Amino acid sequence: MRILGIDPGIGICGFGLIETSSRASARALDYGAVTTEVAAPLPARLLELYESLKEVFEQTKPEVVAVEKLFFSKNITTGIAVAEARGIILMAAEQKGLPVYEYTPNEIKKSLTGYGAATKAQIQEMVRVHLGLEKKPKPDDAADALAVAITCSFLYRQGQNGEYKFSNSRNK
Amino acid sequence: MRILGIDPGIGICGFGLIETSSRASARALDYGAVTTEVAAPLPARLLELYESLKEVFEQTKPEVVAVEKLFFSKNITTGIAVAEARGIILMAAEQKGLPVYEYTPNEIKKSLTGYGAATKAQIQEMVRVHLGLEKKPKPDDAADALAVAITCSFLYRQGQNGEYKFSNSRNK
Repeated sequence: MRILGIDPGIGICGFGLIETSSRASARALDYGAVTTEVAAPLPARLLELYESLKEVFEQTKPEVVAVEKLFFSKNITTGIAVAEARGIILMAAEQKGLPVYEYTPNEIKKSLTGYGAATKAQIQEMVRVHLGLEKKPKPDDAADALAVAITCSFLYRQGQNGEYKFSNSRNK
Repeated sequence: MRILGIDPGIGICGFGLIETSSRASARALDYGAVTTEVAAPLPARLLELYESLKEVFEQTKPEVVAVEKLFFSKNITTGIAVAEARGIILMAAEQKGLPVYEYTPNEIKKSLTGYGAATKAQIQEMVRVHLGLEKKPKPDDAADALAVAITCSFLYRQGQNGEYKFSNSRNK
């Protein structure tokens, strides 16, 4: 199963493709981040993000897309921009015919470390270990995207008979 | 000048096209709303919105697009969905090569009635009067979209020498 995780953002949007056949054998096939020009007007940045994402989908050929859910706690202005970017991400995945699953930061932390209060550094270390990487993936946005993909791989494993059954995280 | 106003939303997204040559002669050429299926998953709704907007752009042939800016005061969950929809709207306009201007609810109220605390009913009545309509436009989302378009027409008129000079509302 090829799962593409995405960490939404307008300035920098992380992505990470993993391949899983069993819980033990997850590996990172590709990861990185797409960026948009800070000085450009917002509509131009959103279009740039859209075009870049289409390329990412084309190159990584995922079967499933997993996206971090929005969580407004710190900065509401940043939050609005992230939500605008997320609109593009979800639409682009749908346009490509890809099923989209969403996970909150809390679900991601719990899946990877067992508790919801894990630090960013702990999450990134779990990503590194789980994928058998020598160093933690860079940039951080790519590591975060891989964490979403791993969360997705863990949750679909809850299904019986080996079928890809995702617990009720499919967004409605 | 053909200005397309848009009142962003995921369930219902209002649009209104006005034509202005002088302050006195603004008229509504077209208005309405595009809707998405409530029961559909969010990515499918966003794609539906995107496809519908492309049709609206195609049919109304605007020279400028004016979009209401997001204002989070009431419901943050609704706010996130509106921001996701706004991402699609801004990107689709950019893709079509259309300049996009944004106005806050406060700017719209001030432009149409002279004060920022105007009620929705007052705004809609001003829209009706300004455009010389017999009844106020329906649905409300279309009336709101026309209000954004009118605001845009008022603000560009502040430019000298008759050129289309928009006061610093062009989003960055």
